[in-house]
Amino acid sequence: MVTILDVARLAGVSKATVSRALNGKVFVREEVKARIMQAIDETGYKPNQLARNLANNKTNSVGLVITNGLYNGPFFSSMIYHAATDSEMHGRQLVLADGKHSAQEERDAIDLLLSLRCEAILIYPKYLTVAELDEIIDTSETPIVVINRELTRNRSQCVFVDHQQSSERMVAYLLAQGHTRIAFVAGFEGSPTGDSRLAGYHQALRNAGIEPDPQLLVRGSWSTDSGYAAGRELLARNVPFSCVLAGNDDMAIGVAKACQEAGLRLPEDVSLAGFDDSVIGKYYNPALTTLHVPMDEMIRHAVAILLLPDETPPRAHQGELVCRESVVKVG
Amino acid sequence: MVTILDVARLAGVSKATVSRALNGKVFVREEVKARIMQAIDETGYKPNQLARNLANNKTNSVGLVITNGLYNGPFFSSMIYHAATDSEMHGRQLVLADGKHSAQEERDAIDLLLSLRCEAILIYPKYLTVAELDEIIDTSETPIVVINRELTRNRSQCVFVDHQQSSERMVAYLLAQGHTRIAFVAGFEGSPTGDSRLAGYHQALRNAGIEPDPQLLVRGSWSTDSGYAAGRELLARNVPFSCVLAGNDDMAIGVAKACQEAGLRLPEDVSLAGFDDSVIGKYYNPALTTLHVPMDEMIRHAVAILLLPDETPPRAHQGELVCRESVVKVG
Repeated sequence: MVTILDVARLAGVSKATVSRALNGKVFVREEVKARIMQAIDETGYKPNQLARNLANNKTNSVGLVITNGLYNGPFFSSMIYHAATDSEMHGRQLVLADGKHSAQEERDAIDLLLSLRCEAILIYPKYLTVAELDEIIDTSETPIVVINRELTRNRSQCVFVDHQQSSERMVAYLLAQGHTRIAFVAGFEGSPTGDSRLAGYHQALRNAGIEPDPQLLVRGSWSTDSGYAAGRELLARNVPFSCVLAGNDDMAIGVAKACQEAGLRLPEDVSLAGFDDSVIGKYYNPALTTLHVPMDEMIRHAVAILLLPDETPPRAHQGELVCRESVVKVG
Repeated sequence: MVTILDVARLAGVSKATVSRALNGKVFVREEVKARIMQAIDETGYKPNQLARNLANNKTNSVGLVITNGLYNGPFFSSMIYHAATDSEMHGRQLVLADGKHSAQEERDAIDLLLSLRCEAILIYPKYLTVAELDEIIDTSETPIVVINRELTRNRSQCVFVDHQQSSERMVAYLLAQGHTRIAFVAGFEGSPTGDSRLAGYHQALRNAGIEPDPQLLVRGSWSTDSGYAAGRELLARNVPFSCVLAGNDDMAIGVAKACQEAGLRLPEDVSLAGFDDSVIGKYYNPALTTLHVPMDEMIRHAVAILLLPDETPPRAHQGELVCRESVVKVG
């Protein structure tokens, strides 16, 4: 019979830390949480508290709405992972519902989760506007927190980073490395995240006195395949550039493939950077320079706002520049 | 107002194809499905059929149980993506529940989905045994299909590939390239998939008259980080090998990093292969040789068994060797 002590030993923490973490009353550091989760897996430990919650005949569940167009990538799988494990840390069960392809279907997914008696709901919206989200929160009895949007009225019910400011910081860094011909692979048109990153690119260039060249702008739709297609489109234009900034890491990996197929070496011939700090960037060769979005911290905060509102003050989240091997100095 | 015709035009198919696909009465090819999904996203089309279903006050939902220890990777995000979009193609909504860390919690997740009135349930089990799964299906009124396990009694209620046979095929290929010192990075101990792939490795070596060297076996836990740690452990043993086979692609990418940090070039100094054919392998440099697991086809089949049982005959699914750049001939 595996006990909580076995988990604690394997995770290298005290029994009390495992217990408090699983009862959801304290925050634990990301790296400690990961060790505890791994130890639970390796030992096969079955936490009694969770069993009790389930036996209580409360659903004890937290709902999450994300549209299926976003499931298929490492960034989103990391988000779902954190939402599930953070919910578990609070003794809850995550239930994911699909927001599909429209604002109405995102509303329908919220309604479905409410009808399932979820006690709190997270939404990473793709189609609902800030005004619509504010209205949903205003009229809901169930706590709802919005991930990745800055709300107007319900400012304590959202977690986000300023993507435009982060993008400006990234482009300023690339300019400081001597790159002046920087191509940009934009995300999905109409995506607030994508639009903000594009706006940051334009603003940073203009701050440096450089007029953005429309020939250096191509459009992808977030996936690696779309990044590859965008990279090929860019290369086919035959305009000079020394650096490509992709709207996310997945697309950056696709751009890298297109460059390599064209006989360009990374980073010697072309520098490359992305956004998100998804796990593959760290392992890619060359390791990818990126802008870290603290999704783990944002999700932990969002779940805490939902479940422990009185103990969870508002706080700002910041993107962070992660300089690795894929960008080199030129000129 | 966006119409179904706009979607059809953009996807390059007839209006009838979009309509039938969304009403779930025909199978469409993977590539056509992806085009339709993308066109729905790009146009912002809101399918009326789906709205009607939701308005009908039926939950019209398909439940999926996966444990959160498996969420954090591209292979599983692809699985969730296909489960959601295939459910949508049948006019249903996917609801994911977390199986957490034990067989009991996998049962609890199934029970939660049943209490939510899901009309059918998919489970990708980690802890429940075949005997337990057979019993759950025997006693359930709601259709349940098991992904990635060969059941004993309910043989029409499962979709799987033979991982041992696939692994034997991969190792036979590596041997045919002249590799005789092949290291193996095994997955999570006790994972049926991991155990089968390891058994296939042992079997293929013995078929070739090679006694497996325990010094060439290291253990990871499926993640890229664990593959990196396993790669370092292997290199620290200072035993000769010309090829590393990792139990999945994520771990292979981690092994690659460990090799590169040790000054080894891929594939000139070390060949490398994985399993799953996750999207990153195609884009990795060098492109990763792998064993394709037809998850898209398996999920499509599983959803069809659940929702159109009379029209869905049983069929076998096969892994497929995908030879790319990361394995070279030696000797």
